[in-house]
Amino acid sequence: MRLLFHLPLSPFSRKVRLALAEKRIPFDLRIERVWERRDDFLAMNPACTVPVLQEDNGLTIPDSYAICEYLDEAYPDTPLLGRTLAERVEVRRLVAWFDGKFHAEVGMNLLYEKQFKRAMGRGNPDASSIRAGYANLKPHLAYLGWLAETRPWLAGPMLSLADLAAAAHLSALDYIGDIDWSLSDGAKDWYARVKSRPSFRPLLADRVSGLEPPDHYANLDF
Amino acid sequence: MRLLFHLPLSPFSRKVRLALAEKRIPFDLRIERVWERRDDFLAMNPACTVPVLQEDNGLTIPDSYAICEYLDEAYPDTPLLGRTLAERVEVRRLVAWFDGKFHAEVGMNLLYEKQFKRAMGRGNPDASSIRAGYANLKPHLAYLGWLAETRPWLAGPMLSLADLAAAAHLSALDYIGDIDWSLSDGAKDWYARVKSRPSFRPLLADRVSGLEPPDHYANLDF
Repeated sequence: MRLLFHLPLSPFSRKVRLALAEKRIPFDLRIERVWERRDDFLAMNPACTVPVLQEDNGLTIPDSYAICEYLDEAYPDTPLLGRTLAERVEVRRLVAWFDGKFHAEVGMNLLYEKQFKRAMGRGNPDASSIRAGYANLKPHLAYLGWLAETRPWLAGPMLSLADLAAAAHLSALDYIGDIDWSLSDGAKDWYARVKSRPSFRPLLADRVSGLEPPDHYANLDF
Repeated sequence: MRLLFHLPLSPFSRKVRLALAEKRIPFDLRIERVWERRDDFLAMNPACTVPVLQEDNGLTIPDSYAICEYLDEAYPDTPLLGRTLAERVEVRRLVAWFDGKFHAEVGMNLLYEKQFKRAMGRGNPDASSIRAGYANLKPHLAYLGWLAETRPWLAGPMLSLADLAAAAHLSALDYIGDIDWSLSDGAKDWYARVKSRPSFRPLLADRVSGLEPPDHYANLDF
């Protein structure tokens, strides 16, 4: 069976899980504690990051960007990158926005500081980073809300990888209780729509040992 | 004429310039001082980063990932992302390696600290970051040298975006004198091959006001 090496709270792993599920491609999950730097895993992905997808034919695909582009080329039914050139530009611009800008300005300051830093042996959370993360979250939620209120889906007429990337990053932060949904009705309504899709159910059922999500995390009517 | 908004020492702009030139797509360059946050530029790219490509038909493409994927779809002659699915995985894995890992571990610690930080009004270079950048450069040059010595080009049989991404990042650091080419013969020989391509000439002719590159920068026989 196709195998995805992942971590439950890795937004990049969540994005790929959503993309696979939207495309109805079956896969098994295996947790990879990347900080243990397992030799067999390093051989598959010298960058030692999750996600890594291993196909039944032996093809190994590291990196969520490489995986998502591969999935749309290898399994073109249910395209997630848009149809026209202009649509595809907008999808990829927003994927880069959430994977790059949002992750650097919000995710690294909250999710990484509070969850991953200690596991990786890099010390304690830094209070000024956490403050910066909360401050940066506000304009990001406002931008997301504006996109959601002016378009059917974030990148345009169709659900796309832009929605999945945004939902992946937000859902990981929501698990640790860091999203204040009262900040943007537009963002909240859009997230409720994404959250109610069948592809989202496995993410809502995830539990990280020793860390319970807030009550609203798995609630579709939050 | 097609227009690329760029900064001369931005590795992501350099990657796109090389991709356009390898594909023989003509374009004009315009310097965009992103730290001035020009209104018209923010309207084109809310992330306020270079590069941004503006096509003659009005299509605006922000972000080097979105631009490079667009170029291979819109101008499929001289493909830069590989031919088979497996080749394309390897090209994108390495593009992610240089744009993500290399940039975070080396570029941000050297190029950003020494060149961009002050221009952006974010204070003085941090000595410990610069030390980390030089330390991280060594294993990266070793990995690059190993790839170059075991394959015709970095990702496999053909010149690809992986070579252009790697050369873009290294050339910006080489301009500020931060690459010690004696560290890896394999990396040096590969860079000499990329540097001698016609697509590279405009980068070697670039000059940043107030900052002369070292003598070997534009020398093909360095």
